[in-house]
Amino acid sequence: MRHVTRDNLTEVFAEYLGEQTDPRVREILTVLAQHLHDFAREVNLTHEEWRKGLEFVEWAGRITTPERNEFVLLSDVLGLSSLVDMLHSRPDATSSSVLGPFHVSNPPPLAIGGDMKGDFEGIILLVEGHVRDTAGNPIAGATLDIWQTAPNGMYSSQDPDQDIHSFHGLMKADHNGRYAFTTVRPVSYTVPDDGPVGEILRAAGRHPWRPSHLHFIVQAPGHRSLVTEVFPDDDPYLDEDTVFGVRADLVIHYTDHQPQDFPHGFALSGKVTERFLRAEFDLVLAKV
Amino acid sequence: MRHVTRDNLTEVFAEYLGEQTDPRVREILTVLAQHLHDFAREVNLTHEEWRKGLEFVEWAGRITTPERNEFVLLSDVLGLSSLVDMLHSRPDATSSSVLGPFHVSNPPPLAIGGDMKGDFEGIILLVEGHVRDTAGNPIAGATLDIWQTAPNGMYSSQDPDQDIHSFHGLMKADHNGRYAFTTVRPVSYTVPDDGPVGEILRAAGRHPWRPSHLHFIVQAPGHRSLVTEVFPDDDPYLDEDTVFGVRADLVIHYTDHQPQDFPHGFALSGKVTERFLRAEFDLVLAKV
Repeated sequence: MRHVTRDNLTEVFAEYLGEQTDPRVREILTVLAQHLHDFAREVNLTHEEWRKGLEFVEWAGRITTPERNEFVLLSDVLGLSSLVDMLHSRPDATSSSVLGPFHVSNPPPLAIGGDMKGDFEGIILLVEGHVRDTAGNPIAGATLDIWQTAPNGMYSSQDPDQDIHSFHGLMKADHNGRYAFTTVRPVSYTVPDDGPVGEILRAAGRHPWRPSHLHFIVQAPGHRSLVTEVFPDDDPYLDEDTVFGVRADLVIHYTDHQPQDFPHGFALSGKVTERFLRAEFDLVLAKV
Repeated sequence: MRHVTRDNLTEVFAEYLGEQTDPRVREILTVLAQHLHDFAREVNLTHEEWRKGLEFVEWAGRITTPERNEFVLLSDVLGLSSLVDMLHSRPDATSSSVLGPFHVSNPPPLAIGGDMKGDFEGIILLVEGHVRDTAGNPIAGATLDIWQTAPNGMYSSQDPDQDIHSFHGLMKADHNGRYAFTTVRPVSYTVPDDGPVGEILRAAGRHPWRPSHLHFIVQAPGHRSLVTEVFPDDDPYLDEDTVFGVRADLVIHYTDHQPQDFPHGFALSGKVTERFLRAEFDLVLAKV
């Protein structure tokens, strides 16, 4: 286009698209170009700022490895990951929330009532509930992939001192959709802030903290997979999660109990000698 | 924010910014988040598409090197680079146009009337003109950093068979602001399309061609630096430059001449035995 201008550029971009272009690709590219161009026009982006932005993504590229994905983290702190989750959550099912970069493949099996903390020390937390459909019926045999941070604030994939499967477990709900396990109380932690995302957070006057949480991926035939997290209602970062992962229905209350009230049917039954916490949370899956 | 939703997410993002945040950083981040979120909402971006986009930028990161910057190329084919140029062009000065990734530092000096083609074969092109200010006054002693493709369609930095400084020259305009040199006619060429940008172009039904051009960076004390390109009016890709670099005032006409009409005062004077092309182009710089 010989007469491309700051005002017609977006139309010119759309005109360049071939007639055979897949309609969804066309939609995504034209809306992306519109917003990218509008962003630059609205802030009157300078060459220096443009170069700075490029250096930033180049840096993100250099430090991204299979174990640390700075682009996912960038999407997280800009709220994009959470927005995609919210766009596809069903109002009558449990909200989805960020998968994050720390999930590990092939988690070890965890029996109902099993313990996920291994030899780690900390306040014992008993978690239980049911997997249900949106009509409230239990989903027998649903699988729950569960993971969390160790007490030092690190996931196993971040921490050379942990076994890769520590604080990961794969549970099969019973015929009533029930799941139950023990662990230690997860801790609040910071996202990696020694790269470009950290620089953005500092420039924005934001901290890198996430409220403590448990991760779940719940799957059952005929139902949509649910990727979510649950957060205790007393976490100091609940209202300022740096990756925007908290939803109202994902906040739970940990109740405090005497050791003699620890229930039967758990791997730790009879072994608990200090106060422990207990939480109940039902996971509701939408139909496919 | 405990009650973040798809609708309030952008406001929540803005509220997270610290009070001490630099006003320009605040403006850029909030407008960026607004457009990023609006993009995802408008196209109802799916998890699969989000992951595909992430894989795409991860791939761009992996193949980016000092010699090949896939992020710059992505900015180019999405029109962002050209838009930033257009946002900061002065209407009474020569339009700026994409720098591109092929400029080489420390170009060799080129005298007025000098030859830039070296031993390369091709149709000889004589280019001359004046560097002026916006009032039409010559800018004595302006420097012109000039570069182009070799006849094989490659810049020196892309081509191990070329000296790194082939088809690059640094000229100092005379007291009348005049510059003049000979070269061979530049050729149309394709941007690298064996990476993620090539995949986007194919998905969009677009080709990777750029119309042939000469690059200039023109600098003079008290004036804004000008980064630009000029294009011949008969190039087949003039109306479909894949990086949106063509502007109406950057299109020139190559006139055709008999060898006996080759002028005096050039390194090639007396040595031209075939028809040659001639073009005149004034470069107008705005005051700082």
